[in-house]
Amino acid sequence: MNEQNKAVVLVSGGLDSATTLAMAREQGFACYALSFRYGQRHVAELDAAERVAQSLGAVMHKTIDIDLGGIGGSALTDHSIDVPDQAGKGIPVTYVPARNTVFLSLALAWAEVMQARNIFIGVNAVDYSGYPDCRPEYISAYEGMANLATRAGVEGHHTHIQTPLIAMSKAEIIQTGMRLGVDYGLTVSCYAADDQGRACGRCDSCRIRREGFQSAAVRDPTIYI
Amino acid sequence: MNEQNKAVVLVSGGLDSATTLAMAREQGFACYALSFRYGQRHVAELDAAERVAQSLGAVMHKTIDIDLGGIGGSALTDHSIDVPDQAGKGIPVTYVPARNTVFLSLALAWAEVMQARNIFIGVNAVDYSGYPDCRPEYISAYEGMANLATRAGVEGHHTHIQTPLIAMSKAEIIQTGMRLGVDYGLTVSCYAADDQGRACGRCDSCRIRREGFQSAAVRDPTIYI
Repeated sequence: MNEQNKAVVLVSGGLDSATTLAMAREQGFACYALSFRYGQRHVAELDAAERVAQSLGAVMHKTIDIDLGGIGGSALTDHSIDVPDQAGKGIPVTYVPARNTVFLSLALAWAEVMQARNIFIGVNAVDYSGYPDCRPEYISAYEGMANLATRAGVEGHHTHIQTPLIAMSKAEIIQTGMRLGVDYGLTVSCYAADDQGRACGRCDSCRIRREGFQSAAVRDPTIYI
Repeated sequence: MNEQNKAVVLVSGGLDSATTLAMAREQGFACYALSFRYGQRHVAELDAAERVAQSLGAVMHKTIDIDLGGIGGSALTDHSIDVPDQAGKGIPVTYVPARNTVFLSLALAWAEVMQARNIFIGVNAVDYSGYPDCRPEYISAYEGMANLATRAGVEGHHTHIQTPLIAMSKAEIIQTGMRLGVDYGLTVSCYAADDQGRACGRCDSCRIRREGFQSAAVRDPTIYI
């Protein structure tokens, strides 16, 4: 396998990253799936990530432990902050400080070791417009930094941060995934899922997902509590 | 305490980061010291980091666990790669892939939660010229990315990556630290220190440190094995 054909793909267990993995594989990449146990409420995501990585043919799936809960500052990792049913204005309380920066940095480290020149992340600037680290200008700045940070960059090998979903609607994402054979019944998107991965049906992530299936005219396989 | 007077300071337990902490404090910052248990050979560093943070008046000291050893690729975290006695040409085998990027990203997350607008890191482009992530152009790109990554950046608060040592010689660093009351006997620089923090005296880090004390005409307090 040529190193130009390897990709590290961030896989959370949710709908977006599953679709991203399917798209990376369709482009011919050997995919190295990477997940994080970071103190999130919804650990059912990690079981989902494992199922998704296997079902979509990842070469390897690695889960890294990192204690973002010790840093605090988000409803997703600080269990004293309630996950709201509806998004307010501005940046949501479910925003985890610098999360994508931390995740991309660990992906960059693994990519360097594996000599992978592509990192896929399923960020989306449409549904998650309130998250600063889902914007195209952020991704572009990250890629520039990454190419100064590493041995690969110094040696002239460009690392690409690939964000195939960034401008897609949720319906487009779901339609793309269906075409590529993604089984969305394996995925968990809910911010407050129970241990079996059943969704609350009320949080922002559930609402966006449900509306996506409706808009895409695809049966919603989500199991709700 | 005004948020403009808070700083997150990366403290490894080594000589450079101890000096950086002393310099940040001299500038009037309330210092939040941050260390990482990342699979390094030299865990004696972490005991040193705790002593250094306390002795130099850090407001808080946090150690985050992160399994860079699982990613591999460096003599510092992969115990099957020997730490060399002398540096070769190019990027050393002690380079940990994307280490400063990972560390700065966690510092950025904590800074955002603490509303600290300054992050201090003791990188040095003189002694560590072989490390891509110790170069000024890397730090500048990181700062640009960081200000697009966070809620603070979106809200117009600039986060500064402060690298006071970046152009200093080891002798200058030691002389500065002595003036600021750093007890270098508390620090551990060796890549292969034993459990008591005693230095091997042979690795690259030991060599640079010893030559630094000689050039600075300061008694070397290091205890060698």
